[in-house]
Amino acid sequence: MPQNPRLRPVAESRVQMTEIVLPEDTNPGGTIFGGRVLALVDKCAAVAAMRHARSEVLTVSVDSVEFKSPVRVGDILLLDGWLNAAFRSSMEVEVQVRAEEPTTGRCSLTTRAFVTMVAVGADGRATAVPALEIRGEEEHRRAQEAADRRRARLERRGSGHAP
Amino acid sequence: MPQNPRLRPVAESRVQMTEIVLPEDTNPGGTIFGGRVLALVDKCAAVAAMRHARSEVLTVSVDSVEFKSPVRVGDILLLDGWLNAAFRSSMEVEVQVRAEEPTTGRCSLTTRAFVTMVAVGADGRATAVPALEIRGEEEHRRAQEAADRRRARLERRGSGHAP
Amino acid sequence: MPQNPRLRPVAESRVQMTEIVLPEDTNPGGTIFGGRVLALVDKCAAVAAMRHARSEVLTVSVDSVEFKSPVRVGDILLLDGWLNAAFRSSMEVEVQVRAEEPTTGRCSLTTRAFVTMVAVGADGRATAVPALEIRGEEEHRRAQEAADRRRARLERRGSGHAP
Amino acid sequence: MPQNPRLRPVAESRVQMTEIVLPEDTNPGGTIFGGRVLALVDKCAAVAAMRHARSEVLTVSVDSVEFKSPVRVGDILLLDGWLNAAFRSSMEVEVQVRAEEPTTGRCSLTTRAFVTMVAVGADGRATAVPALEIRGEEEHRRAQEAADRRRARLERRGSGHAP
Amino acid sequence: MPQNPRLRPVAESRVQMTEIVLPEDTNPGGTIFGGRVLALVDKCAAVAAMRHARSEVLTVSVDSVEFKSPVRVGDILLLDGWLNAAFRSSMEVEVQVRAEEPTTGRCSLTTRAFVTMVAVGADGRATAVPALEIRGEEEHRRAQEAADRRRARLERRGSGHAP
Amino acid sequence: MPQNPRLRPVAESRVQMTEIVLPEDTNPGGTIFGGRVLALVDKCAAVAAMRHARSEVLTVSVDSVEFKSPVRVGDILLLDGWLNAAFRSSMEVEVQVRAEEPTTGRCSLTTRAFVTMVAVGADGRATAVPALEIRGEEEHRRAQEAADRRRARLERRGSGHAP
Repeated sequence: MPQNPRLRPVAESRVQMTEIVLPEDTNPGGTIFGGRVLALVDKCAAVAAMRHARSEVLTVSVDSVEFKSPVRVGDILLLDGWLNAAFRSSMEVEVQVRAEEPTTGRCSLTTRAFVTMVAVGADGRATAVPALEIRGEEEHRRAQEAADRRRARLERRGSGHAP
Repeated sequence: MPQNPRLRPVAESRVQMTEIVLPEDTNPGGTIFGGRVLALVDKCAAVAAMRHARSEVLTVSVDSVEFKSPVRVGDILLLDGWLNAAFRSSMEVEVQVRAEEPTTGRCSLTTRAFVTMVAVGADGRATAVPALEIRGEEEHRRAQEAADRRRARLERRGSGHAP
Repeated sequence: MPQNPRLRPVAESRVQMTEIVLPEDTNPGGTIFGGRVLALVDKCAAVAAMRHARSEVLTVSVDSVEFKSPVRVGDILLLDGWLNAAFRSSMEVEVQVRAEEPTTGRCSLTTRAFVTMVAVGADGRATAVPALEIRGEEEHRRAQEAADRRRARLERRGSGHAP
Repeated sequence: MPQNPRLRPVAESRVQMTEIVLPEDTNPGGTIFGGRVLALVDKCAAVAAMRHARSEVLTVSVDSVEFKSPVRVGDILLLDGWLNAAFRSSMEVEVQVRAEEPTTGRCSLTTRAFVTMVAVGADGRATAVPALEIRGEEEHRRAQEAADRRRARLERRGSGHAP
Repeated sequence: MPQNPRLRPVAESRVQMTEIVLPEDTNPGGTIFGGRVLALVDKCAAVAAMRHARSEVLTVSVDSVEFKSPVRVGDILLLDGWLNAAFRSSMEVEVQVRAEEPTTGRCSLTTRAFVTMVAVGADGRATAVPALEIRGEEEHRRAQEAADRRRARLERRGSGHAP
Repeated sequence: MPQNPRLRPVAESRVQMTEIVLPEDTNPGGTIFGGRVLALVDKCAAVAAMRHARSEVLTVSVDSVEFKSPVRVGDILLLDGWLNAAFRSSMEVEVQVRAEEPTTGRCSLTTRAFVTMVAVGADGRATAVPALEIRGEEEHRRAQEAADRRRARLERRGSGHAP
């Protein structure tokens, strides 16, 4: 599976999502279910990865996720996703989730997640993705950290080979 | 009800939403239900209006909406919303909806809608909103057209008074 | 595309829908999202159009919609839809939405919408629909007004040709 | 709990519901889940009972239900509900469900269900309902059969007392 | 259609489901809709029947269901399903539903239902299912009662023949 | 916040959930969205934690999750959850997810997740939970590994203090 020679900038994968938190998303105390946030994170990551790979994608893994502050009914949930790194057929997508209290506009970080997606072809098998064009210090740092996280994931799995 | 003296720029009301079209959103032929698009348009407009008014909002009206091209299962739906004009307690929000075919990246305009929202207080009654800071030619043109559409709406309703 | 010679009466397209408004349909203040109403309006119009055309249908446009009175959690929402006019491959469906307060039975008009649907064949292309059999003064007035609205829509679109 | 002296005709409780069967309502073979039909039957019965009792209602029981013919994705589901009988605080609602194949208009009976609902007050306790005004042979036969079914239900439960 | 010679124990069909009751599942008074329970009962029965038949299944009938105690927002709903009897191509599944009040752990029986499912092949027609291996007094009693209920269902339907 | 003196066995927190994978849960290729699995994992963990704490709970974090094999439309999804360890006001819940192919009964591990939940009182603040009664070698190993994972989480967060 040769590395795809095309190069795509990080900006092309950028995804923004906005949701209003409804009663059905929350427990009886009015605080959002963590699982509802994770479902949105996965959708955001999938769109970012599809934009880079221009193919269907599957979720391979989600790195540890911490919920930093409660989100409540009526809050506006903001998700921002982008590629940190593209490997052979897999991509690391970072998703940041913030909650905006609508009457004050006060925003707080809900969570930050690293999702690994793999591109798949029509036959359902992994397929090569374009290389990611890394520009500037910030993007280099992110790509480096993504490579470190990938190495850690592979070690945890006890294997030197990953998608 | 005196005009609220605060001024807020158009950019503060800007909302971006992204959705993947699922089978549940489409008719048996695989094309999105128009009503599903309208539900998303209304959600997008509500968030834009809440960001300007910093209060709860209600939908007053949706101007004529045309669906220009079919949207299909698996497409990525992109919504962009912002305020065109703020009146006493009501606001006109414009929402543009585009569909992105995920494997080619080809984008087409699905629809463009003008939604009027009204700000309501805790008592459920209309409440004043900040004035909209209009900058540049483009924003002036939009505010002017919004005022024209409002006048037409009021005439259709046979009344010289609106929220 | 020759005009379909069959004639179908307005009554055959008639659709009645009933819904109970749930918390998931409403904003935190307990008032229904306008978009939820529009999604139901579109479903009602689609069934009316399918009943006349006996084919799949797509939403072409929704004329200006005004929300006249708030609908609240627990209210019963009543939708009534029927064809006002059938053109070559398109149809104008009128949908009236009323809200019934369940413990008093008090009914109020929520909105009234004009939806244009087009009949499509298995190949996804517009297909001819039966003519609408217009009986009585009321139906004639509605068909006439529908033709006027269609002309206005075509003019707004800057084109003398429509489905 | 004295019998409520008001009298309400059967027609006032009449409810019509229309749904399009979506992929999410069906099993992988494309046939509707029986449970999806039962959920709609219960909603239809609740609205009919609320219209008679003008209070909140709870489902007490659903008599044996048989699914007579399969319903498929894209079919239009039609529900008709009305009161057969009103007892002290409970009501028997009959719901008939038909499926309409949209391209042919062919209608077939899906199921017929007898649902017993009880009226409850703000304190959550059973509350008296108006008497049902029975007119004509058909309504008398239905009321009589409903009373028979109620007696059978009470005997199955081994009790001579029911809501 | 000869009886399938394979034998499967009751335990293999056993299904456990757990749900948290959300606001969208309840009426404005906070009590669960009976129809929501029935939808879960049908899903539970379908999985039990699929596990025995190892084919797709359709719901044929649901015997009379009584709701014994109200279930409220935030309660945990527990469903237990298993086969009582396997006939030629149909199976009787029993489903018991209990509600657990989360802060006290107090459990109460919500309902108990007998669902008849039929196994269908890829052509949508009824197909033979394995025989059910009945062990011990309890399982014999259940199988006997299921056969009695089936006979009663067939008599109600005025036919000596059933799936 | 003194350690709650009551002791509860692991078995009391055990939760089993069963779901049929529907088209709405899957991408256009028919494979389940990772986010849908994570939403179910969170619900399962919440019920397990509520059973131990007998209070409302919030999700604090989800450890790295890997999706080991694809899950497809029509598969039966099985979730098993239980407490590995209880700390002061937080609990580690392990959730194992398996997919069962309905016509063959073949089961495969989809994922295994470690979710940290915190018990909260009516005031929304962390509250002490009962101690977990650890019996046998297996439960001791799990409690030990949970304590190790917790230490790692605290170090990642750069803090010696956690709920």
